Amino acid sequence: MQVLILYFSKSGNTKKLAEHIALGVESVSGVKAILKSTGEVSKKDFQDSAGIIAGSPVYFGVMAADLKRVFDEYVGTRKKMEGKVGAAFATSADPTGGKETTIMSIIQCLLIYGMIVVGDPMDATGHYGVACVGTPDKKTAENAKKLGRRVAQLCSRLAQ
Amino acid sequence: MQVLILYFSKSGNTKKLAEHIALGVESVSGVKAILKSTGEVSKKDFQDSAGIIAGSPVYFGVMAADLKRVFDEYVGTRKKMEGKVGAAFATSADPTGGKETTIMSIIQCLLIYGMIVVGDPMDATGHYGVACVGTPDKKTAENAKKLGRRVAQLCSRLAQ
Amino acid sequence: MQVLILYFSKSGNTKKLAEHIALGVESVSGVKAILKSTGEVSKKDFQDSAGIIAGSPVYFGVMAADLKRVFDEYVGTRKKMEGKVGAAFATSADPTGGKETTIMSIIQCLLIYGMIVVGDPMDATGHYGVACVGTPDKKTAENAKKLGRRVAQLCSRLAQ
Amino acid sequence: MQVLILYFSKSGNTKKLAEHIALGVESVSGVKAILKSTGEVSKKDFQDSAGIIAGSPVYFGVMAADLKRVFDEYVGTRKKMEGKVGAAFATSADPTGGKETTIMSIIQCLLIYGMIVVGDPMDATGHYGVACVGTPDKKTAENAKKLGRRVAQLCSRLAQ
Repeated sequence: MQVLILYFSKSGNTKKLAEHIALGVESVSGVKAILKSTGEVSKKDFQDSAGIIAGSPVYFGVMAADLKRVFDEYVGTRKKMEGKVGAAFATSADPTGGKETTIMSIIQCLLIYGMIVVGDPMDATGHYGVACVGTPDKKTAENAKKLGRRVAQLCSRLAQ
Repeated sequence: MQVLILYFSKSGNTKKLAEHIALGVESVSGVKAILKSTGEVSKKDFQDSAGIIAGSPVYFGVMAADLKRVFDEYVGTRKKMEGKVGAAFATSADPTGGKETTIMSIIQCLLIYGMIVVGDPMDATGHYGVACVGTPDKKTAENAKKLGRRVAQLCSRLAQ
Repeated sequence: MQVLILYFSKSGNTKKLAEHIALGVESVSGVKAILKSTGEVSKKDFQDSAGIIAGSPVYFGVMAADLKRVFDEYVGTRKKMEGKVGAAFATSADPTGGKETTIMSIIQCLLIYGMIVVGDPMDATGHYGVACVGTPDKKTAENAKKLGRRVAQLCSRLAQ
Repeated sequence: MQVLILYFSKSGNTKKLAEHIALGVESVSGVKAILKSTGEVSKKDFQDSAGIIAGSPVYFGVMAADLKRVFDEYVGTRKKMEGKVGAAFATSADPTGGKETTIMSIIQCLLIYGMIVVGDPMDATGHYGVACVGTPDKKTAENAKKLGRRVAQLCSRLAQ
């Protein structure tokens, strides 16, 4: 079973956060993390994954066009995605500069893809997903791992 | 196993939509629907339910204060709600008058309560939840039933 | 003085709505409507306009990547946009399928561009902006005109 | 001319932020700040003000029920509020814990009240409004003042 971690990253911060999430996904027995940028991902990755965790830097309070493009173009896979697990993450420059609304814009896409959506677990921050200003620090790295783990565990449980 | 359908209703439209959702919940073997208004619900209802489907009329694009009050006051139950299933519904007077943002305001609460969130299934509208302008018509009633069924089925599956 | 009406349109519905808005803009003396698709617009159009009214079809509850791309790429004009007037519109296939969250995703961009944001006026629907399912009908066309007029009037007033 | 700064505050942090905003409002010649809690405000305050800046602590990602109650109950004043200026602020416990979605929930109300909405100016953070984690620090206090000043200046300009 695999979980796709899909990201767009320019400065490298969102990619780093994606890598921490991947560690959490792989901490669950039997679940593999597939780490792909928006330039590398394929429709097959969407269809072959039991879950998708998608992330973006904050560009004007909404996910970057590069990530939105993937959701728009894969509209043909929509019906096959119903019932899979989804979650989101974001990085920003400003503390109240759009991290949450960026995460919510991704969650809106995931819901319309028919997916089952979770935020980060209560022992992380217990909110919409994982986010940080700039490079992920140690605490954010741990929270990212917990989000990955939560998604992988839910995928695993739903497959039984 | 029970699913709580929590609503605030003044005109009766949101209550009617809640009743259609309840039919969907009860169509799943072993799952009972508990229908409660914001004036009737208790913390115990939150804790005893495997899922919550919460609905409100649209008041200025956000759930009514009466429903928000319940979420605010039950903050002490938050940690016990993690991993339960959540979904939302709304009724409005205007076609683009805040149904979606009202549903999303409820979904934001459910996510911060740690819940696993779903929209209505692809064979309903495949979006954030169930909503209608005025009294639910036949199509909305069917969609409501499908949302209730989806939540109950997911609760049932997660309990195994 | 000019107001830019910026749209992305595939089926032609969003373009039609843009044209109705343009009529409202031009009903205000001294204000010209500049109608541009996302493929035609330039940074100069952003900078030369006293207001921007931006619209998109609903793609997964958020503006289409094509429109987001424009906001992302014109980041360099951001500081010059502060204090201009902004508004939004959307068209969808489903009645509760993301029109409002699409409009709100555009409004979030406009706010972060430093703009002064208005919805459609009270004698239209008095909500976030103008939207319709499919092709704009007569009522929506009137509301679109009212939104255009409101934005043009505010631009005109702020220029005094 | 007066600007209403309306807040709900339990710990006192949101009240402190409101007070800093009031200083900004009063820095504009001819504009008075009216500081009211949700328990003190009246419909007359809404109607007599040229602008409203409303703030809340983050309760589950949406404004507190106490603030929402005011918007719900004053529905009768809605038509008289069209064209006034609106803005929002929030305080939270967690850095990505709902500050932005709380501000956006308030902005949604203000838009449906027909108001002209601005975020904090570019020389503050240039985003949806002013927010902080815990007690406002020096930088947040300055940004709050800038938001108040921006709203008061716009009210003043629109009155000419």
